[in-house]
Amino acid sequence: MSQSPAAVIGVDLGGTKLATAVFEVSGLMRYHSNLSLGSNTGPAAGALIREAILDCIAKTNSSVKAIGVAVPGISRKKTGTVWAPNIQGWDDYPLLEELQTSFPGVQVVIESDRSCYIMGEHWQGNAREAQNALFLSFGTGIGAGILVDGRIMRGAHDIAGAIGWWTMGLPFQKKYVPCGFFEHHASGEGLRKIALEYFEEKGMRPASLAEHFSAADIFTSHAAGEVWARHVVEQAVTYWGMAAANLISVFDPEVIIFGGGVFGPAVSLIPAIQEETKKWAQPVAAKMVAFVPSSLGGHAGVYGAGYFALQSLQDN
Amino acid sequence: MSQSPAAVIGVDLGGTKLATAVFEVSGLMRYHSNLSLGSNTGPAAGALIREAILDCIAKTNSSVKAIGVAVPGISRKKTGTVWAPNIQGWDDYPLLEELQTSFPGVQVVIESDRSCYIMGEHWQGNAREAQNALFLSFGTGIGAGILVDGRIMRGAHDIAGAIGWWTMGLPFQKKYVPCGFFEHHASGEGLRKIALEYFEEKGMRPASLAEHFSAADIFTSHAAGEVWARHVVEQAVTYWGMAAANLISVFDPEVIIFGGGVFGPAVSLIPAIQEETKKWAQPVAAKMVAFVPSSLGGHAGVYGAGYFALQSLQDN
Repeated sequence: MSQSPAAVIGVDLGGTKLATAVFEVSGLMRYHSNLSLGSNTGPAAGALIREAILDCIAKTNSSVKAIGVAVPGISRKKTGTVWAPNIQGWDDYPLLEELQTSFPGVQVVIESDRSCYIMGEHWQGNAREAQNALFLSFGTGIGAGILVDGRIMRGAHDIAGAIGWWTMGLPFQKKYVPCGFFEHHASGEGLRKIALEYFEEKGMRPASLAEHFSAADIFTSHAAGEVWARHVVEQAVTYWGMAAANLISVFDPEVIIFGGGVFGPAVSLIPAIQEETKKWAQPVAAKMVAFVPSSLGGHAGVYGAGYFALQSLQDN
Repeated sequence: MSQSPAAVIGVDLGGTKLATAVFEVSGLMRYHSNLSLGSNTGPAAGALIREAILDCIAKTNSSVKAIGVAVPGISRKKTGTVWAPNIQGWDDYPLLEELQTSFPGVQVVIESDRSCYIMGEHWQGNAREAQNALFLSFGTGIGAGILVDGRIMRGAHDIAGAIGWWTMGLPFQKKYVPCGFFEHHASGEGLRKIALEYFEEKGMRPASLAEHFSAADIFTSHAAGEVWARHVVEQAVTYWGMAAANLISVFDPEVIIFGGGVFGPAVSLIPAIQEETKKWAQPVAAKMVAFVPSSLGGHAGVYGAGYFALQSLQDN
């Protein structure tokens, strides 16, 4: 009987789904699966991760040496606990201890999803050649994964990259308190908010628009030339460009990658975003940065988690 | 005859002056001098640096092993040349080669002034305990020195920290083209511009104000309760607070240090800046960051240059 091949597992926990992948130590993805999180919260979400990992091991007959997990929130390095605002009961969830107990002798590493996105792209995607790169994730919320001189930037308290809180205009308004100015204006959920504000201001509502419309519906209406959708999307392009400009001026990166559910449908707007950026950014740095979409699509998280798992093997 | 003690030299080249200091390898500053740059530009500015170093060596009878130079602009690491917009003829000045030729056998390292400011504070100032820290320099221009996990962040092309270009408001205006939105509103020179815009808008001009008034004059008028100065300074506090908020959300630092000529007179405004910051920043990170003035005052640059000189000895 042949020996099981050595492997690592990357897990990407989202607010609503769970992706898992098995990587050979060469970096080749051998297996990938996607699960709905369903109604699993608290310890049930932890149990689902454990089961998904066991399923990966069984399906691939791998000898798993390390597990990396991307979480939608903050991975507290000192305690091994996770804060994930969209998963009930995960204010300070002891995920590291739980996985170490379930998989003795296996290295476990937990990172924020945004750190995994940029590290996935650095490993096997559009930031392969770059040592200084940013992954801007636009989904329900907004976050930035940041690579500085080839290393992940986590900040002093594992919070770095929280650019959903960025302000790009006065006056301050109460509606910015729960999520920040940038997220209010230009996240997937923010696009919906700006559309609803517009409808209220104009006293109208497009008849064709579903009751619970999504950000994707806004881009469909934008493509169809609807005036309200142009208002919402053009404002978002302006703020995306201003934020990219500020990131360029302060980080001087080689590449900025646009990802998350919104990019997606907004990928065709990347040239317009770069045009807006040139108005504001440090001009020399602005000329030398590439604007690209994610090349790993929805897989950037598992790639990054797999990379951190491999790295933890080398470190130990 | 006793052997000369081993030492390094830190040089801080400003737009108008040149500071030089000799450090023992223990970090103790043994000697410090200040020169006016006068009308020296191009190669004459380079010669002045050489003479100041020779003078330091003669005065202290030191055996100098390494020289660090802080420059007001960009130190291009690949070529060893310097771009310093305020020194005529320094678009691409070969300072590294010049100093290596003048001081054979001595390590020479050139860094941007903002990198030196934060590294000086990290070495012997208010960022001693921090691994993630920012030095915000508000003088004629605005720049940020950035420490990430104990290392200087330079960016892909040595431009990182150019936050004078940060935008914090629409619409874009042509007046932002030469220097950026933030610098236009809230640098030392920017405060003057905003005051002049205010005088033009109101059709007035304070009789007591000197023809060529300075940022310091604005703070004097502010302390005296003059309405126009309150307008200028309160707007600057707002933008300083918004910028600090955005830096906190993206870097999650332990400490932000306010320095440069403006801090200085604006040091008493730091609590008001921090109040503004709390409105906007990622709330957990905002609670954990300290706001402090520079503890090295005008010496942060030579301290940082001296630190980089010492580090170059250890690296080689």
